[in-house]
Amino acid sequence: MRIGVLTGGGDCPGLNAVIRAVVRKGVKEYGHEFVGFRDGWKGPLEGLTMPLNIETTRGILPRGGTILGSSRTNPFKIEGGVEKIKDNLAKAGIDALIAIGGEDTLGVATKLDSLGVKVIGVPKTIDNDLNNTDYTFGFDTAVNIAVEAIDRLHTTAESHHRALIVEVMGRHAGWIALHSGLAGGAACILIPEQKFSIEKVCEWVESRFKSHYAPIIVIAEGAIPQEGDMVTKDQTLDSFGHVKLSGIGDWLANEIETRTGKEARTSVLGHIQRGGSPTAFDRVLATRFGLQAITAAHEGDWGKMVALHGTDIVRVPLASATEQLKLVPLERYKESEIFFG
Amino acid sequence: MRIGVLTGGGDCPGLNAVIRAVVRKGVKEYGHEFVGFRDGWKGPLEGLTMPLNIETTRGILPRGGTILGSSRTNPFKIEGGVEKIKDNLAKAGIDALIAIGGEDTLGVATKLDSLGVKVIGVPKTIDNDLNNTDYTFGFDTAVNIAVEAIDRLHTTAESHHRALIVEVMGRHAGWIALHSGLAGGAACILIPEQKFSIEKVCEWVESRFKSHYAPIIVIAEGAIPQEGDMVTKDQTLDSFGHVKLSGIGDWLANEIETRTGKEARTSVLGHIQRGGSPTAFDRVLATRFGLQAITAAHEGDWGKMVALHGTDIVRVPLASATEQLKLVPLERYKESEIFFG
Amino acid sequence: MRIGVLTGGGDCPGLNAVIRAVVRKGVKEYGHEFVGFRDGWKGPLEGLTMPLNIETTRGILPRGGTILGSSRTNPFKIEGGVEKIKDNLAKAGIDALIAIGGEDTLGVATKLDSLGVKVIGVPKTIDNDLNNTDYTFGFDTAVNIAVEAIDRLHTTAESHHRALIVEVMGRHAGWIALHSGLAGGAACILIPEQKFSIEKVCEWVESRFKSHYAPIIVIAEGAIPQEGDMVTKDQTLDSFGHVKLSGIGDWLANEIETRTGKEARTSVLGHIQRGGSPTAFDRVLATRFGLQAITAAHEGDWGKMVALHGTDIVRVPLASATEQLKLVPLERYKESEIFFG
Amino acid sequence: MRIGVLTGGGDCPGLNAVIRAVVRKGVKEYGHEFVGFRDGWKGPLEGLTMPLNIETTRGILPRGGTILGSSRTNPFKIEGGVEKIKDNLAKAGIDALIAIGGEDTLGVATKLDSLGVKVIGVPKTIDNDLNNTDYTFGFDTAVNIAVEAIDRLHTTAESHHRALIVEVMGRHAGWIALHSGLAGGAACILIPEQKFSIEKVCEWVESRFKSHYAPIIVIAEGAIPQEGDMVTKDQTLDSFGHVKLSGIGDWLANEIETRTGKEARTSVLGHIQRGGSPTAFDRVLATRFGLQAITAAHEGDWGKMVALHGTDIVRVPLASATEQLKLVPLERYKESEIFFG
Repeated sequence: MRIGVLTGGGDCPGLNAVIRAVVRKGVKEYGHEFVGFRDGWKGPLEGLTMPLNIETTRGILPRGGTILGSSRTNPFKIEGGVEKIKDNLAKAGIDALIAIGGEDTLGVATKLDSLGVKVIGVPKTIDNDLNNTDYTFGFDTAVNIAVEAIDRLHTTAESHHRALIVEVMGRHAGWIALHSGLAGGAACILIPEQKFSIEKVCEWVESRFKSHYAPIIVIAEGAIPQEGDMVTKDQTLDSFGHVKLSGIGDWLANEIETRTGKEARTSVLGHIQRGGSPTAFDRVLATRFGLQAITAAHEGDWGKMVALHGTDIVRVPLASATEQLKLVPLERYKESEIFFG
Repeated sequence: MRIGVLTGGGDCPGLNAVIRAVVRKGVKEYGHEFVGFRDGWKGPLEGLTMPLNIETTRGILPRGGTILGSSRTNPFKIEGGVEKIKDNLAKAGIDALIAIGGEDTLGVATKLDSLGVKVIGVPKTIDNDLNNTDYTFGFDTAVNIAVEAIDRLHTTAESHHRALIVEVMGRHAGWIALHSGLAGGAACILIPEQKFSIEKVCEWVESRFKSHYAPIIVIAEGAIPQEGDMVTKDQTLDSFGHVKLSGIGDWLANEIETRTGKEARTSVLGHIQRGGSPTAFDRVLATRFGLQAITAAHEGDWGKMVALHGTDIVRVPLASATEQLKLVPLERYKESEIFFG
Repeated sequence: MRIGVLTGGGDCPGLNAVIRAVVRKGVKEYGHEFVGFRDGWKGPLEGLTMPLNIETTRGILPRGGTILGSSRTNPFKIEGGVEKIKDNLAKAGIDALIAIGGEDTLGVATKLDSLGVKVIGVPKTIDNDLNNTDYTFGFDTAVNIAVEAIDRLHTTAESHHRALIVEVMGRHAGWIALHSGLAGGAACILIPEQKFSIEKVCEWVESRFKSHYAPIIVIAEGAIPQEGDMVTKDQTLDSFGHVKLSGIGDWLANEIETRTGKEARTSVLGHIQRGGSPTAFDRVLATRFGLQAITAAHEGDWGKMVALHGTDIVRVPLASATEQLKLVPLERYKESEIFFG
Repeated sequence: MRIGVLTGGGDCPGLNAVIRAVVRKGVKEYGHEFVGFRDGWKGPLEGLTMPLNIETTRGILPRGGTILGSSRTNPFKIEGGVEKIKDNLAKAGIDALIAIGGEDTLGVATKLDSLGVKVIGVPKTIDNDLNNTDYTFGFDTAVNIAVEAIDRLHTTAESHHRALIVEVMGRHAGWIALHSGLAGGAACILIPEQKFSIEKVCEWVESRFKSHYAPIIVIAEGAIPQEGDMVTKDQTLDSFGHVKLSGIGDWLANEIETRTGKEARTSVLGHIQRGGSPTAFDRVLATRFGLQAITAAHEGDWGKMVALHGTDIVRVPLASATEQLKLVPLERYKESEIFFG
């Protein structure tokens, strides 16, 4: 077989590990050939390719980013996009695709599958919000980066009697905030799944100060204040209810300063959470995803996504990944409140 | 209730996180009191205690080691040991025990449970070889430390045309070697579960050199050469078939130098794998184990061990933890061989 | 002698290492006694003390922050402040002070010295802008944290065709930006000492894109655009010419997006640069500063600051530290421009 | 000009940063051309070259190892070696050489310089023992790696009442041991410059145990016991007085166990100290060395080595680098003893 591989969407540590595993096993065990499509769906759409073999995938395992490049191009939003893809696949003699990506990339893959393109999906999101897999690679790396930052802030918070806020990624799901906040000993954790009361946050902040520890607050970029809590500042919400203009972290610092009289400072980790070398967990997971993906392709088990269930790598229907967002269950969040304040 | 907590066996990042979670939820949600027993089973045996409350467990989450100390003391190997423990528990007004430890510590807990002591177990081993839990905390940290070391060695191996060997922990189970070798891009991985052929290892070494990459070999301390492979050096095996005197890593370096004519060097990570701050994964797992353990105690669900199944923290019979060693399944090892050489 | 020790100003990794070295050598070699003053100059001002001896300084070497706490209290701005300090020192039987801090703290120390208080200064600033010492501890740690962030961003920048901006500390001096930008392979470095042309920055950005690498820009929080460069956005400058409201990093991202049409994202490291465990360089420097400071006190060499000259720890007049800010020399900046674009 | 560049000797983080800076400034500012010689002096000896330009040196700044490869080949030990080098340089049209290396590599460079080869030297050694420069790149990285390991061991040492030994690099000079031991809070530091008394070491070990802290001992691989201290084990010394067969760390563990009755364990970091990404300090130093080296070559200032004096990069006679080994001064060692025990 001649198999095309592409990576789409935001950066995510572990993409290269998947590519390497796919190619290595595909060539050595099954004798397949590979073509790399560049920049996500833009690659098959515009016929942008690069050679993909054991030599070109050597040494990439520990490297962040993706040697294939990425984009957010969606062929279904482009006039004649699907036909162009089919043409380009045919011209390049491609029998099947392995698509590595998140909601958007796998959404496209699911539709292409229903239109007869042979495709296997590999789930990818640092946000951990894809359905039907226990974890996605990239998440563990992002959480560890956030925890390292929180660990550093603790000493400053304690010596300087200051509230410190860490804004982490997570527009719709609070997994990074929940796990990094739990692991970092946060005084409170604010996630998109649960609107927060700024008054309650200030109580936790003051309670932490009273026990002679300074509070660190972990807030997901998509966290949303309760209605009525936006009065002290002249700021408006976007259509999701998110704080516009400056980020929610800066907004929260202002509120805490105004309401408690304590200094507050915000760190915005931003894309630092997306880059760099993956953790061991993410490298192993990405590698095992790659091995399973190429085996699924070899066996012609099209329309599947590889997934982690417990300690096993299994195959699930591609469509199930994007059926719904995997949000933080309320009981997981409630359970963590014992550490607040 | 008045609950005693103890930690036994070798060091393992995450112990303090368990203790903190147990105490925090026990005090704040259930109103229990706690007593810390020092140095594993030696604590209840000799009545060595320390205060355990929210204040004494503040700030310990990110710290390696255990504030309770540890030991390998086994009360069943001491004349009248069990009676002494029962007496000391009664004297200190202890209603139940939470025992955090590995095979030995939980083995003792299981026997005490059958003798009427109320006990909940929390599994702990960096080796990841306890039965009936997907992972134990400490393992992820150990693997990451090994991977960091391997990452560093790659550049030296490549620039200097030298085989480099990393000896990692794992006397009976090869989990650390398997995961760190996979994540580190090792040229081969040698684990206790599968006797290795030194000839085959030398083939992989030479194959890697031929592709202009230098080989890094990850070997578990308990890896065992095939019979007949010990001829070039005058070394003897202990009763488990392990290489005696100097470690297996040094032995392997000698063999590779003798057989291939290439230089080989060994790094022995030793206790570095057991100490220091836990990774985010281990902190979250340890914290969740602690929360579940105190809830089990609160509910009087004695004789149970907390365990990770998928993304859930569940309770399993304490005895099941030590029923058998959780070894690396042969298919997991075979699957990784695609990356060898 | 009975010696008071205090730490003032912003957080800085290495403070605890100084304290430990002072106490350890003072007690063990010279037989002095110590008193810890809490929260900078607020401590002697209000008589806030804590015990300082070998026991209370055990294990603090690798920990960020300061066990003494800190503040920005200036006794010369408080009615009768100096008299209160003298009284409190007399009451507590304090013969001399070791003051560890930056410009403000050492400025106070210099004035107190001229008023007859026996004092030794230890320079501290992550910004590295104190005069008459090659380096201050905390700087190396801050630079390494910034470089780790930049390293992570490289993979994202490359895979996603995006300009990434890292805003680092440095209100008046660009040392952190210069060293982290050089070490991180930045496409350009913007420092307060040299007003920048936004047009030139966009040229560098586009040149880096042309060579198929995405640009990372390191900008000090105090960097200043050339006059006339503020036209595309309705933003005003504060009295130093710094961009007000949102930080300069966010401003730069907006400008780059508007002018080049490329996406740009900003990470603001903030207090993460100030906290956490110090690097080996900072621990050794802080320890050696502490040893020299207590020896200077023991010898009665008052009014001195310890300083690094080459590989030697020397003593310089306390006043010389704050005579002028140690800015990045223009030739050091020019030299680095060879890597821009 | 057409300039050859080579790297010789052991691995050292920062080599690639030097190469990149040399090429970048040489091409962009001076318009020179470059040829990479592979594998140290073997390259010019056997005419092994690789292209060296801005493209081939992109992205290598943070990478350990050397893209040029290395070796310990000495042309003066090879029949007609010098003539071959001169011939190959002439054939390749090489005007001058930039040689990056340690004692051996720069020793060859010095002799070639005296024989009319135009050469500039760049000092390189993780051991920091080259003369006439304050520091060499690679040293700071090695020390940080060792300190990270020591930090991890502290928690294990404390929880488990065990002496832990870290054997670090340094055959003749104890700089890595001294700095990592100071920064890591070692209970004692053993360096080649000062023969140690095993009895005294055991005293320090027991004193640390008495204060309820467990001792960590940092020992340089070249540390030497006092005469008469070798009696408890049947081990012999090599011609330098170093412990043969197993390393000095293992020997020390045995001695401590025998003499104090406490458990002792050894970690041997080995080549982990030599590899991987350089610290910020080493990247800046290596980059500045590279810039100065190419400027020296451009100005025809042959026979010089670049060096760090204070914060300046200066040029010193090439011969001065290898005149004598830069050992740890006795007063630096004595000063650190205040922390022992």
